[in-house]
Amino acid sequence: MSLTSFTLHGRDGAARTGVISTPRGEIRTPAFMPVGTAATVKAMLPENVRATGADILLGNTYHLMLRPGAERVARLGGLHKFMNWERPILTDSGGFQVMSLSGLRKLTEEGVTFKSHIDGSKHMLSPESSMEIQRLLGSDIVMCFDECPALPADRKRIEQSMRLSMRWAQRSRDAFGDRPGHMLFGIQQGGLEEDLRGESAEALTSIGFDGYAVGGLAVGEGQEAMFKVLDFAPGQLPEDKPRYLMGVGKPDDIVGAVKRGIDMMDCVLPSRSGRTGQAWTRHGMVNIKNARHQDDPRPLDEHCSCPACRSYSRAYLHHVYRAGEMISGMLLTWHNLHYYQELMQGMRDAIASGTFAAFEEQFHTQRAEGDIPPL
Amino acid sequence: MSLTSFTLHGRDGAARTGVISTPRGEIRTPAFMPVGTAATVKAMLPENVRATGADILLGNTYHLMLRPGAERVARLGGLHKFMNWERPILTDSGGFQVMSLSGLRKLTEEGVTFKSHIDGSKHMLSPESSMEIQRLLGSDIVMCFDECPALPADRKRIEQSMRLSMRWAQRSRDAFGDRPGHMLFGIQQGGLEEDLRGESAEALTSIGFDGYAVGGLAVGEGQEAMFKVLDFAPGQLPEDKPRYLMGVGKPDDIVGAVKRGIDMMDCVLPSRSGRTGQAWTRHGMVNIKNARHQDDPRPLDEHCSCPACRSYSRAYLHHVYRAGEMISGMLLTWHNLHYYQELMQGMRDAIASGTFAAFEEQFHTQRAEGDIPPL
Ligand SMILES: [Zn+2]
Ligand SMILES: [Zn+2]
Repeated sequence: MSLTSFTLHGRDGAARTGVISTPRGEIRTPAFMPVGTAATVKAMLPENVRATGADILLGNTYHLMLRPGAERVARLGGLHKFMNWERPILTDSGGFQVMSLSGLRKLTEEGVTFKSHIDGSKHMLSPESSMEIQRLLGSDIVMCFDECPALPADRKRIEQSMRLSMRWAQRSRDAFGDRPGHMLFGIQQGGLEEDLRGESAEALTSIGFDGYAVGGLAVGEGQEAMFKVLDFAPGQLPEDKPRYLMGVGKPDDIVGAVKRGIDMMDCVLPSRSGRTGQAWTRHGMVNIKNARHQDDPRPLDEHCSCPACRSYSRAYLHHVYRAGEMISGMLLTWHNLHYYQELMQGMRDAIASGTFAAFEEQFHTQRAEGDIPPL
Repeated sequence: MSLTSFTLHGRDGAARTGVISTPRGEIRTPAFMPVGTAATVKAMLPENVRATGADILLGNTYHLMLRPGAERVARLGGLHKFMNWERPILTDSGGFQVMSLSGLRKLTEEGVTFKSHIDGSKHMLSPESSMEIQRLLGSDIVMCFDECPALPADRKRIEQSMRLSMRWAQRSRDAFGDRPGHMLFGIQQGGLEEDLRGESAEALTSIGFDGYAVGGLAVGEGQEAMFKVLDFAPGQLPEDKPRYLMGVGKPDDIVGAVKRGIDMMDCVLPSRSGRTGQAWTRHGMVNIKNARHQDDPRPLDEHCSCPACRSYSRAYLHHVYRAGEMISGMLLTWHNLHYYQELMQGMRDAIASGTFAAFEEQFHTQRAEGDIPPL
């Protein structure tokens, strides 16, 4: 019997709910993965990330390979021990970050050479080295090394890039080898083109992976274009494997993606927003910097049970943001991660009980109401 | 019966241990008060400050009157509720910070006019306005408004300043009035001069306060000069009231002060150090920035039970400091506050059991050993 599995427990339209099992714990899907770029979810202690309901974190291969270095992390017992998170970790392949270093990198069939943004040192990433780095980190869910062109891009560029990514997917699969308890995910490319996405899905499926990502989205195409792709892309991928939408997103992106059959997502948004005075609530985004909050004794969201809402007023959150105090980022990040996980739990419950449409309607109605009126 | 009290439970030489009782809880002495300048102990949640063993926090009148403003804090239910700390709070008078604004302030018999460092707006602090602001904040232990000259200063300047502070002490006492459950502390001045300190102590005692601070130290005179003053100053103050040494200090300053009869102290050092990569341990100061830690799997201090030591390696703490991650300041501040409170508990126990001399010797022996050798 395999040490990992994916079991679907419910469906509602295209939306699904289930569980990914790994030796390090279960991942309830649809799942939102907080991002722990440099071996920390910024402004949070890992036990508090867990307390928000997160089953899995995402780590960034690019950042970790440069600092502190994958060999060092391995010597210190692996990323889980290093960052004090014993539950599952998914690592990206490093490809996306490396491709973003436009001026500093060179792409060939072999892989990508690039210069570190930290010290300018020269490095190489290829399917083989990415698999090795993710192995050294001890990642539970390993991502194939792929290329992801920014959108808009012409069809020819998208096609060539997708086919390169498929060759790299085969090399990633070969290099990954047989690692019981660890999963390898392929990444579908093809831009906004249904036929190229279909070709990519077939290539990946014939190689065979433990899960499949919808890649190449959330790169500037906008929500409408993204949803158009999500209307067909998940259905091109195997039904019995988890589907992961990378780098998404805002709460309404997430609800729309789950509706279309996505099982996993990750995004820096809740933590980045938390450090810039932005709180996500069922009523949309609250900008705590705004002077309207300075005398407001009410919590961010009276229905939220996170520490920021339970114990502090908007006036306090406004004050510590203005004063540049670290507790501002700590409390707002906690609230945002809590809100995101509560949203995921709400969707899992709604799918299981066949009430996703009602959930989605209420979600949009509450957001349309906007924030509570000033006092 | 008074709603506040100070009870001594043990003595060992000049050192004392006891309890200050207030309606908001007991303060075990000798006590170290973490500093919550702007309604937050930087990088910490208040429940975690409490978990380190803190019974009381210090708030800064100067900072709070400027932002968010004392009237605003009062409207929001007081400083305790505002910052989510229900236990005792001591506020300084604002005098020390205002005096430090050398170019921006003007001193008269009435008080001090000054310009805000935040927006340049003009303000006035006097004994009467300081009492009013501390009342609006809801402080449990209120400090007299005094003047504190930087050292070195000539005897004439020290004498004139001390006598002004004694006139302000009387005005502070009159303005404070009768507030059951709240304590007012006088502040002894007189620089390094025993006779002026004696005159100041007599003036304060004849006015009558709930506690007495040794003021005007830790302003640049050095540990040796400070200890010389502490060899006589605490003995000039009433035996049956708490004695508070303001703005002190490093661990060895604290041990030396307790030895000489001090009951309370406060300092930004443990939290400021925590944000700059410096950890205080029984073996002295560990600079986590140092490359010697980058591969070290050992905790900061294997005997420490704080979250930083329980769950993270020196290598991790080094990494997150270098990466500029907030968790660095969060973990090191927690460790430092934990260490300081453990030091206070160790002294309280040693005084109670009459073994303070042995405690002090072990304290200095362990520091002299220095940090554990590199691997
Ligand atoms: Zn909340
Ligand atoms: Zn510790």
